[in-house]
Amino acid sequence: MLSEHVLEELRAALGPRGCLTGAEVPEATRSDASRTGRTLPQALLRPATVEEVSQAMAICHRHGVPVVPQGGMTGLAGGANPGPAAVALSLARLTGVEEIDHEAMAMVLRAGTVLEVAQKAAEAEGLLFPIDLGARGSCQIGGNIATNAGGLRVLRDGMTRDNLLGIEVILADGTVLSRLTKVVKDNTGYDLRHLFAGSEGTLGIITRAVIRLRPLPGPRATVLAALPDFAAVLRLLALARKSLPGLSAFEAMWADYFALNQRLLGQTFFADPPPFAVLMEADEGAALEAVLEEALVEGIVSDALLARSMAEARRFWDLREGHAMDAALPGLINLDVSLAVGQLDDFATACRQALLARFAQAHVSFFGHIADSNLHVAVALPGGGTEAEAHQVDDIAYGVVRDLGGSISAEHGIGNLKRDWLGHSRSPAELAAMRAVKAALDPKGVLNPGKVLPTG
Amino acid sequence: MLSEHVLEELRAALGPRGCLTGAEVPEATRSDASRTGRTLPQALLRPATVEEVSQAMAICHRHGVPVVPQGGMTGLAGGANPGPAAVALSLARLTGVEEIDHEAMAMVLRAGTVLEVAQKAAEAEGLLFPIDLGARGSCQIGGNIATNAGGLRVLRDGMTRDNLLGIEVILADGTVLSRLTKVVKDNTGYDLRHLFAGSEGTLGIITRAVIRLRPLPGPRATVLAALPDFAAVLRLLALARKSLPGLSAFEAMWADYFALNQRLLGQTFFADPPPFAVLMEADEGAALEAVLEEALVEGIVSDALLARSMAEARRFWDLREGHAMDAALPGLINLDVSLAVGQLDDFATACRQALLARFAQAHVSFFGHIADSNLHVAVALPGGGTEAEAHQVDDIAYGVVRDLGGSISAEHGIGNLKRDWLGHSRSPAELAAMRAVKAALDPKGVLNPGKVLPTG
Ligand SMILES: Cc1cc2nc3c(=O)[nH]c(=O)nc-3n(C[C@H](O)[C@H](O)[C@H](O)COP(=O)(O)OP(=O)(O)OC[C@H]3O[C@@H](n4cnc5c(N)ncnc54)[C@H](O)[C@@H]3O)c2cc1C
Ligand SMILES: Cc1cc2nc3c(=O)[nH]c(=O)nc-3n(C[C@H](O)[C@H](O)[C@H](O)COP(=O)(O)OP(=O)(O)OC[C@H]3O[C@@H](n4cnc5c(N)ncnc54)[C@H](O)[C@@H]3O)c2cc1C
Repeated sequence: MLSEHVLEELRAALGPRGCLTGAEVPEATRSDASRTGRTLPQALLRPATVEEVSQAMAICHRHGVPVVPQGGMTGLAGGANPGPAAVALSLARLTGVEEIDHEAMAMVLRAGTVLEVAQKAAEAEGLLFPIDLGARGSCQIGGNIATNAGGLRVLRDGMTRDNLLGIEVILADGTVLSRLTKVVKDNTGYDLRHLFAGSEGTLGIITRAVIRLRPLPGPRATVLAALPDFAAVLRLLALARKSLPGLSAFEAMWADYFALNQRLLGQTFFADPPPFAVLMEADEGAALEAVLEEALVEGIVSDALLARSMAEARRFWDLREGHAMDAALPGLINLDVSLAVGQLDDFATACRQALLARFAQAHVSFFGHIADSNLHVAVALPGGGTEAEAHQVDDIAYGVVRDLGGSISAEHGIGNLKRDWLGHSRSPAELAAMRAVKAALDPKGVLNPGKVLPTG
Repeated sequence: MLSEHVLEELRAALGPRGCLTGAEVPEATRSDASRTGRTLPQALLRPATVEEVSQAMAICHRHGVPVVPQGGMTGLAGGANPGPAAVALSLARLTGVEEIDHEAMAMVLRAGTVLEVAQKAAEAEGLLFPIDLGARGSCQIGGNIATNAGGLRVLRDGMTRDNLLGIEVILADGTVLSRLTKVVKDNTGYDLRHLFAGSEGTLGIITRAVIRLRPLPGPRATVLAALPDFAAVLRLLALARKSLPGLSAFEAMWADYFALNQRLLGQTFFADPPPFAVLMEADEGAALEAVLEEALVEGIVSDALLARSMAEARRFWDLREGHAMDAALPGLINLDVSLAVGQLDDFATACRQALLARFAQAHVSFFGHIADSNLHVAVALPGGGTEAEAHQVDDIAYGVVRDLGGSISAEHGIGNLKRDWLGHSRSPAELAAMRAVKAALDPKGVLNPGKVLPTG
C-alpha cells in the first residue's frame, strides 16, 4: 500500500486534481483495450506540465513506488495495465500541439495529445501527420511512440519511430532528457530516441515529441484483386513496388478470411472466393490500372475490381478490416506477427495445422499488411473459448513463429501479454543486453515493472 | 605494451594472417581520412569469420586491451584512429554479400564489404542499394552503419539507419548479438539496432547486417536555379516537396561558394553569380519543369538551367561538390553541421561574421543538402592555417551552432575530433544517459575508448 506520507508529497507537487486516490480513481485505469487488466492503481497521477511529470517521478523514485505510464489505454498488449502496488501516471492533461513548422515540416506536440487531434492540426495547415491507426480517436502520440505503433500508413510512411525527429523523456529518477530537434541529420552520439520508442514505458516517460510532417497526398485509387496462389501475390507485390512509388496499401486476405468476411458483410465481391484476395491503394490511378492490366495478362490476377467511388473503396476496406467479425465471433483472438514476406504462406499453413490439431473446431484465418511482412491471425474458438484456451492459442502460434524465425509482435508490442514468449523472437544475448540497458536507465526498476522483459 | 602472452592467444585464435605486429602493421592503420591519427596500433587483428571476431574480443576483454574497430578508414572524425595501447581490429577479411532476397527486398552482407561492391551486387539484380557516398570505393558497410552515414540519397532514402533492417554485433566481451531479420515490423522489446548504428565502434563490433533494397529508379532530371534570397530558397523547397515525390536532391550554394567554384571550374553557369543557387534532381522530369516554371513566374527563381545531358548534369554536380576547391585551397576545412532549415541562413551570417572577426583574411563559404537541414562550411585560412588555427575555426563555428540549438555533426560523427564539443549539442543529462548505456554494454571500456564521449 502507498503510504500517506508519499501521497502527501505527490499531492503537494501535483495539486488535488493531479493526484486521485480511492474512489476517485476511474475504472478505465484498470486495463488497456486488451481488457486483461484486473487491478486498479494505488493512485492516479495526472501531471499537467513536464515539470510536474519530473517531480512525480522523482518522488516515486525516492520511495521506490512503481509507476505505470498510461496514455489513451488503447494498447493491445497489457502494457498500461497497473501491476501490483503501482501508481498510474496519465498523460491526459499534458496535451496540445505546440508548433507546426512548415519549413522544417515538423510538429512539436505534448505526449498526451490524442492522435486525431494532431492529424487534424496538421491537415488544417495543409500537411499530413504521417501516423494513422484505427484507435486514432483515443490513442495518444506518447502511447504511439512508446509502442512504436504501426497502422495504416506504414508501407509508405514507416512506423512511428521512422517519423520521430525529436523526443523529450523523463527518466525514472525525474531527470528531464530533452532533445526536441527538428533536424533529420544528427550524428552526435548514441541515438537514445530509438531506445525510448517502443520501450512501452519501461525506460522513461515521454512528455513531448517532434514528428515529421509530409505533404498532403491527393486522392488515391483502390482495387480489389483475386489471385490464384501465394506466388501470384508475391509477383503482384513485386510489380506494384516497381511501378507505384505512391503505393500506400497492399493487403492480402487468405481464402478463409475472404470467404468469411464476404459472407458476414452480405456482399459479393467475387462470386467464387479466390485462394487469395489483395487490396491495393496507390496515389497513381493510371499506373495502378496499368499494373492490374499487366497482371491480368500474365495470369497473376484472375479478376479485379476498381473502386469507382469513395464508398466502394470503403466497402473494400470493410471487407479487409473484418469489422463484422467481432460481433459474429465473440472472443475472437487476433494475433499480430511478422515474418519474411516469402514465408508468410508457409507460416499460415503450419499455424493453421497446429491450431486445428489442438482445436479441431476453431475457425482460423489469415490476413495482413503483407508488404510490411505483417500477418494477422484471427482465431475463433467454439463458444468463444476460455482464457486458458486463448493462452494455448498464443503458445501454439508463437511456437510456429519461433520455428520460422519470425517476430511474435509486429506492431502491438510485448506489454505483459506476450512477455513470456519474448524469448521466441529474441536471443538470450539480446535479452541480457536489454536488461543491461534497463538497469542502466532505471536501476531501481520503478518504471512499468513486469512489462516487456521476462523475469530473468 | 601488449604482452607477448596476449599476442600468443590472439595468434592462436586468428592464425598468423589474422594478427599482425611490428613491421607487419601497415601505415594505413594510423589514421582515417581526416589524417589526424598519429599512433600505430599495437597489433592489427584481421578476423576472417564472425566467430573469430568474437574470440578476438573475448581475449582482449579478458586482458583489458582496448580495441579500435577499423573499416575502410574513410571516416572524417578520427573515429578509427588508434588510441594509446590499442589494437586495431579490421573487418577487411569479413567480406561478401551473403544473400539478396527479392521478396523481402533485402540484402544480407558481411560488415567488411566495400559499399560499392554491395551497390553493384544489388544493381546486377535490378535493385538499388539505398546508401551512397563519395567514399563508396573504400568505405565498408560496417563503417557506414557504425557512423550512420548520410550521403547522396538521404533526401529520398534516408540515413544508413533508416535502411538497416537487421544487425549482428559482437559485444565487448565477445558475446554475439545477432538479429539478422528482414522484417520491417518488429516490436519485440528495445531496438538495440539503433543503439549500435551511429555508435562509432564504442558499443560493439558490427559483423553482419541486413539492408533494405529498393526498386532501381529511372533516369533523373537535373536543374540549376538562381535565386534572389534565402526566403526564395525556402519557397522553392516547399514547392518542390509538394510536387515532386521523387525529389532526390535539393542542394543550395550561398553566393561565395557559387562564385568561387564557378571561377575555379572556369565555366559560366550564371554570368552574374546569384545570391543563392540551387541544384535540384528528381525522378519526374515534366513535373520538375512545371515547378521551375511556376517558380519563375512567381519570382522565386530568377534564372534556371535544365541539364540536357548526363554530362551537363555532371557539370552541375562538379560545381556543387566543389572538387576544384581542395587543390586550389590547401588545408581547406570542411565542417558538417545541421540546424532547422529555416535557420540555415541566420547561421551562415553569424558564423561568417564570427570567423572573419578572428581570421579577417579567411575565405568562408556555405553549401549543403539543405532539405536535410545539413550545411557544410568551407573555411580556407591564408597559407592553409596551422592545426591550432583549425581548432579555433571549429571552436568558433561550433559555438554558433550551439547558440542556435543545432547539431555539431550532421553526418560525419564525433570520433575524437568533435568529442570535446559534444556538449554543445547534447545536454549533461543526455551525456550521462549515454555514459550509462556505454557502461552497461562495455563495463571495462575496451571498445574504442576515448571516442564519442567526452571524458566526464
Ligand atoms: C481499434 C484499435 C485499432 C488499433 N490499430 C493499431 C494499428 O493499426 N497499429 C498498431 O500498432 N496498434 C494498433 N492498436 C493498438 C494501440 O492503439 C497502439 O498500441 C497505440 O499506440 C497505443 O497508444 P495509447 O496512447 O492508447 O497507449 P496505452 O495503451 O495507454 O499505452 C501503451 C504502452 O505505452 C506506454 N505509454 C503510454 N503513454 C506513454 C508515455 N507518454 N510515455 C511512456 N510510456 C507510455 C504504456 O505504459 C503502455 O506500455 C489498435 C488498438 C485499437 C483499440
Ligand atoms: C571522399 C569522402 C566522401 C565522404 N562522403 C560522406 C558523405 O556524403 N556522408 C557521410 O556520412 N560520410 C561521408 N564520408 C565519411 C566516411 O566515408 C563515412 O563516415 C563512412 O561511413 C565511414 O566508413 P568506413 O568503413 O571508412 O569507416 P572507418 O573510417 O574505418 O570507421 C569509422 C568509425 O566506425 C567504426 N567502425 C568501422 N567499422 C566498424 C564495424 N564493423 N563495427 C563497429 N565499428 C566500426 C570505427 O571505429 C570508427 O569509429 C566521406 C569520406 C570521404 C573520404
